[in-house]
Amino acid sequence: MSTGVRRRMGVEERRQQLIGVALELFSRRSPDEVSIDEIASAAGISRPLVYHYFPGKLSLYEAALKRAAEDLAGRFAEPHEGPLGARLLRVMRRFFDFVDEHGPGFSALMRGGPAVSADGIGSREHVSATHALIDSVRQAAYEQMLSHLDVTDPSPRLELVVRSWISLAESTALIWLDGRRVPRAELEVQLVHDFAALAAVGAVHDEDTAALLHTMARNEPADGPFAELVGRLMSLAS
Amino acid sequence: MSTGVRRRMGVEERRQQLIGVALELFSRRSPDEVSIDEIASAAGISRPLVYHYFPGKLSLYEAALKRAAEDLAGRFAEPHEGPLGARLLRVMRRFFDFVDEHGPGFSALMRGGPAVSADGIGSREHVSATHALIDSVRQAAYEQMLSHLDVTDPSPRLELVVRSWISLAESTALIWLDGRRVPRAELEVQLVHDFAALAAVGAVHDEDTAALLHTMARNEPADGPFAELVGRLMSLAS
Repeated sequence: MSTGVRRRMGVEERRQQLIGVALELFSRRSPDEVSIDEIASAAGISRPLVYHYFPGKLSLYEAALKRAAEDLAGRFAEPHEGPLGARLLRVMRRFFDFVDEHGPGFSALMRGGPAVSADGIGSREHVSATHALIDSVRQAAYEQMLSHLDVTDPSPRLELVVRSWISLAESTALIWLDGRRVPRAELEVQLVHDFAALAAVGAVHDEDTAALLHTMARNEPADGPFAELVGRLMSLAS
Repeated sequence: MSTGVRRRMGVEERRQQLIGVALELFSRRSPDEVSIDEIASAAGISRPLVYHYFPGKLSLYEAALKRAAEDLAGRFAEPHEGPLGARLLRVMRRFFDFVDEHGPGFSALMRGGPAVSADGIGSREHVSATHALIDSVRQAAYEQMLSHLDVTDPSPRLELVVRSWISLAESTALIWLDGRRVPRAELEVQLVHDFAALAAVGAVHDEDTAALLHTMARNEPADGPFAELVGRLMSLAS
């Protein structure tokens, strides 16, 4: 990320560059293993100049987390066009792209956040801010899902189906990162199938979810991931 | 929990009593809201006597967490008798009993652990110890599941099915605690159904999981939760 030859940047441009450099380093290692010196060197500027833009590692780490959260939330945005199964599959691909790019940082964060450090990372205020950020991404994913399902006022059980599927996507990604023993492309399809499966279970318990499942079944093409799941299950059963 | 009249207890008996009293208080509120004075008063002893047995709130909190973790791990133990669906349902009942008894403490812990406090709760060492404890309970649940599935060397995808179902049970319990808007008895059945659904999705992608699903289908009675799910799905589809 070093620019080699220094050139003058505006304040906001420099801040954004530093956040990008920091995010790349924090994605690969735990925050207490990344030093301000390293960030300065990767950005091609001096250590004091980093402190000119950010009071310390904590504020730089928080800015990097915020950018990652916005990036991730943005990947859930998907045009309301075409069948639902194909849309979900594109979203899952972008989600795994994100997880792939930010692997170790994503793991550390989702497994309870980074440890307490002298910089204030892991402090009470920081932990609360981090949880609020994670919750805001989950909420963004939840709202995107509802809008794709064309639901504005979900029953408690439909809400549970959608929220618990989002958490299933998180835990599947974390288990995948621990060894990468299943190809990610298969897990992207599997998570789309898992959504249909959890919705089907929800449908036997709840009318709202049953109505949703009927709409999904009616609108899915014969070559979509949902139809593929049903076809494969039928051939397994026979 | 106050005994009213004090009686002499042996050292180990007193320690165990204090852990029980502390666990009950920590289950209802976040650890920074529970004071040593309150624990002493609930146990019917003086504050200095509490410190005689535990150097501080942190060690008492850790002992309480350890007891809760052992308690929870113990609830996954289930005799290897009768059909799998019924066994899983009994385990889910005991899991929700636990979640019900320890609601606020369980939520606080699973949502990233308690905040840092002056007692050392939330410190780097404490956070690591807490995560290790949570992971040991997940691992106990995973091993119990494998033994009930009669599997010793699972394929990566079967491992993923089992581990991700365990995390689905956790997140379903956490969503349930936030408002309790779906009766817990329904969620216990739903989670058993979810396991069958996730296993069915796994089966279309993986031979080991397909073999497991066939065994499950062969051994389940017509009035068990798995057969009920299939029956209800059939009537939804028609």
